[in-house]
Amino acid sequence: MNDKETIISLLNEFANPKEMASFFVKNATSDFLFIRPSGNPIDAEGFKQMISGDIVQEKSEITKIHRLEFLSENIIMCIFTLSSKFTYKGTPNNDSPTVTSIFKKVNNAWKIHWMQRSTGNADLSLWD
Amino acid sequence: MNDKETIISLLNEFANPKEMASFFVKNATSDFLFIRPSGNPIDAEGFKQMISGDIVQEKSEITKIHRLEFLSENIIMCIFTLSSKFTYKGTPNNDSPTVTSIFKKVNNAWKIHWMQRSTGNADLSLWD
Repeated sequence: MNDKETIISLLNEFANPKEMASFFVKNATSDFLFIRPSGNPIDAEGFKQMISGDIVQEKSEITKIHRLEFLSENIIMCIFTLSSKFTYKGTPNNDSPTVTSIFKKVNNAWKIHWMQRSTGNADLSLWD
Repeated sequence: MNDKETIISLLNEFANPKEMASFFVKNATSDFLFIRPSGNPIDAEGFKQMISGDIVQEKSEITKIHRLEFLSENIIMCIFTLSSKFTYKGTPNNDSPTVTSIFKKVNNAWKIHWMQRSTGNADLSLWD
């Protein structure tokens, strides 16, 4: 796999309901943070607890990758729309956020270094 | 000014109510997009129209810079909390979002290349 294929493979792992909770624990840099729609940061372990505890994932996928850009040899910025169906504390949700993600190549392995997601009703047609 | 001082100076220009509307038109890369809390993208010209048309800024400032990190020699990632008081279509707002921004050095000048902001009530104490 080349670098871009590796990033796409990581994104698909992130989007997999069975893998999402532990994705950052396995694949993030040590100073990684995830920024929630509220603007509040959560680290890899906190994300794992949140997803494992309150959220029951049904289906999740990368709907569209809008940008996959090398910012430098070892830095990739990827902008994508995620879509997922899940239940949060008993309430069903259809979630379709825009996500900004930064990947960093560390010791020859791509790690997720930063991620910020929007609220869940992004309009996909605005990217056309 | 060194590179970090230049970025801070650009952020202060962005936060300045008199400068915000035209900031991206003046300082962004050609393929820059701003991701709104909804996840919807807007370009530099669209942002200018939105800010000029519907929003009356009263006060705005960079409350805190959480990270200002060189991802490579020519790429800086800056995470900050903005705070602003403004009126949107007549309704007063106190806005305090978390913002992810990516700056790129192009022909020796720092340009804003990507920005995503959260909704407006981020909890600043979570960064301590």
